[in-house]
Amino acid sequence: MSDLSTLIPQGFKLAGVHCGLKKSSQNPDLSLFVSERPAAAAGVYTQNLVFAASVALNRELTPAKDIRAVVVNSGNANACTGERGLADARRMAALAAEVAGAGPKQALVMQTGIIGEFVAMPKVEAGIAAAAKQLGNDEAALISAARGLMTTDTVPKIYGRRLKLAGGEVRVLGVAKGAAMIGPNMATMLGLVLTDAVADAGTLQEILSDSVDDSFNCISVDGHMSTNDTVLLLANGASGVTPEGADAQAFRQAVHEVCGDLARAIIADGEGATHLITIDVKGCASRAQAHRIAKTVAESPLVKTAVAGADPNWGRIVSAAGYSGIAFRPEGVRLTVNGFKLFEAGAPLPFNADEVSQSISGNRETQVTLEFSEGDKSVRFLTTDLTAEYVRLNADYHT
Amino acid sequence: MSDLSTLIPQGFKLAGVHCGLKKSSQNPDLSLFVSERPAAAAGVYTQNLVFAASVALNRELTPAKDIRAVVVNSGNANACTGERGLADARRMAALAAEVAGAGPKQALVMQTGIIGEFVAMPKVEAGIAAAAKQLGNDEAALISAARGLMTTDTVPKIYGRRLKLAGGEVRVLGVAKGAAMIGPNMATMLGLVLTDAVADAGTLQEILSDSVDDSFNCISVDGHMSTNDTVLLLANGASGVTPEGADAQAFRQAVHEVCGDLARAIIADGEGATHLITIDVKGCASRAQAHRIAKTVAESPLVKTAVAGADPNWGRIVSAAGYSGIAFRPEGVRLTVNGFKLFEAGAPLPFNADEVSQSISGNRETQVTLEFSEGDKSVRFLTTDLTAEYVRLNADYHT
Repeated sequence: MSDLSTLIPQGFKLAGVHCGLKKSSQNPDLSLFVSERPAAAAGVYTQNLVFAASVALNRELTPAKDIRAVVVNSGNANACTGERGLADARRMAALAAEVAGAGPKQALVMQTGIIGEFVAMPKVEAGIAAAAKQLGNDEAALISAARGLMTTDTVPKIYGRRLKLAGGEVRVLGVAKGAAMIGPNMATMLGLVLTDAVADAGTLQEILSDSVDDSFNCISVDGHMSTNDTVLLLANGASGVTPEGADAQAFRQAVHEVCGDLARAIIADGEGATHLITIDVKGCASRAQAHRIAKTVAESPLVKTAVAGADPNWGRIVSAAGYSGIAFRPEGVRLTVNGFKLFEAGAPLPFNADEVSQSISGNRETQVTLEFSEGDKSVRFLTTDLTAEYVRLNADYHT
Repeated sequence: MSDLSTLIPQGFKLAGVHCGLKKSSQNPDLSLFVSERPAAAAGVYTQNLVFAASVALNRELTPAKDIRAVVVNSGNANACTGERGLADARRMAALAAEVAGAGPKQALVMQTGIIGEFVAMPKVEAGIAAAAKQLGNDEAALISAARGLMTTDTVPKIYGRRLKLAGGEVRVLGVAKGAAMIGPNMATMLGLVLTDAVADAGTLQEILSDSVDDSFNCISVDGHMSTNDTVLLLANGASGVTPEGADAQAFRQAVHEVCGDLARAIIADGEGATHLITIDVKGCASRAQAHRIAKTVAESPLVKTAVAGADPNWGRIVSAAGYSGIAFRPEGVRLTVNGFKLFEAGAPLPFNADEVSQSISGNRETQVTLEFSEGDKSVRFLTTDLTAEYVRLNADYHT
């Protein structure tokens, strides 16, 4: 792999430091992303009615045209913390903006960790000051910054694209952390995408919402929607390139792909997971219906444990579709698992159970395809299997 | 405990035998319940769009006024089996009715087990013949019949009431098997309530629907709605007593209580469970909204693993309520766990985490109370915790 620093868009500097929210001093828990010039910014946030202070703050500000910094901490979600929590988030934003020489409304905040505890602000304040001194655009800075987002993720998640457009090169860089509420006492999926393209906030918002629909909104580890889910897209225009015509489409596609890469990496790193499960739902009357069916199948503990155990117990898949709340004709359904056709026209097909089991146990990825006869809309959804290790990690009480 | 046979309503005989659908010959897998006289019958069934042959058959017949038999098998759900499956279920009903000297539309069928395999009809036919010879109304017959419903249940579930009414004694007897889809390759919650009261099918249907709402519809092990869920209520009138006035209310209450006892027993016997969790949701605008919030909390893997680990990670409970899809004011929420007040007015309350943890780990039951400020409707919902043992049981692939 080439040096990851070549993915960093022009005009951005970043850093990740340990400020003390996580126990091990080896683990960065505060990251700072600073743009040399005002960046247009868009955001997509959790749909949870109970949402974190950072989400409230970002929602007020985005879409924005003059963001200069994003500050992120892991180890504390700052959710269910009332007015004091909101004041803490505002103070974090003000300090991060100050690093960039900007005003308090020119920074965004992302937080992840335990819900219902106040943030140790002296640690965070010291962390922002330390990060300010370490800002850089080399590979080490990028990896530290990506690690500062992590909770129980085992690897930092960094993806990017370099586009040769008519006006010159544009870079799109994304970092993210683990899916849904996957960690012991931890919460949240966070994603941050940076680009040096020239783009207005309205365009960015539309591109981001569209990209999130097909990526972060099509993954689930445990179906528990966090209070803090946030994906941000910042464009600072430092490349001087405004993607137009076919280039606009290429730019949109690059953001789309980076979000897709990050979403897939989150699922591949799902807690305790031994399988990545791809669920393709086809032939529905609408994409929303296909999504609802896929999500219901993806979140059935019985489907997930069956894959963990390489058990070709396909009735669990069909019956999960049946309780999704979406109407369909059962006799028009076809189910295929890893290429083996198991159910069609309302009746089981003969199959070699050992052969299907071996195809599941022998591969890290499982492919489930459910075809309906209601229309031509489809969706691809990613999830993990459910293992005893997931339970162990999430039942562990840390005194 | 007094002899369980004293709970058996007059005019019913029953038996449970091993016919070979389950491996161990120690385990009954076919049960037969016969009424000496025509019984009015009501049924409540799965809402799954993909439903078993037995559900299709029962739905056609209930409410009914002249049912003479109920035949049940475990080990095979006869779901996703198309026309052949429906023909098999009809044949079972006809054979069971024949035992009672009745016609093919005078018997109901309940089935549970693996989805998508055809029933071994020669075994079932021999089983019905064998059960016919063993019909009785002693305790051994009752226990065998209750065991014939079981899949991975560890204990048979038998509850009843004897009512002294104006016209004489009325008995209400209920048997049931494990919740939702809790077993390896197994499916379904089945319940059967028998009474010798005189009641018409319409009244029975109303009483049963009402009782199921507060009992079987307020429990969840894993949220996976089965293809076969069935609860039947039969009244053969053999006592000669027609409950009227206050007695009608007492009779209704007895059916309600027996359903409640069975539902609770199902949760207490949930697979791999180490805690029974009672979730009281109060102060909602409607019972349906309270139910939706309670069910969402009950089915969050993160809430369930936290209880398994005695982790007082209450943010998981509040955030699950937040994604239930029900609107509420977060600042009007109060959360109490085992009597400890943890969250109120949008902010965390100080609490001793070790003390709360010990109250969870030291008790088989956990009490979660979520109070909203939206109205005065409430619901009580029961669930289990989620343990590594649940995953092991459900991931186990039996070749």
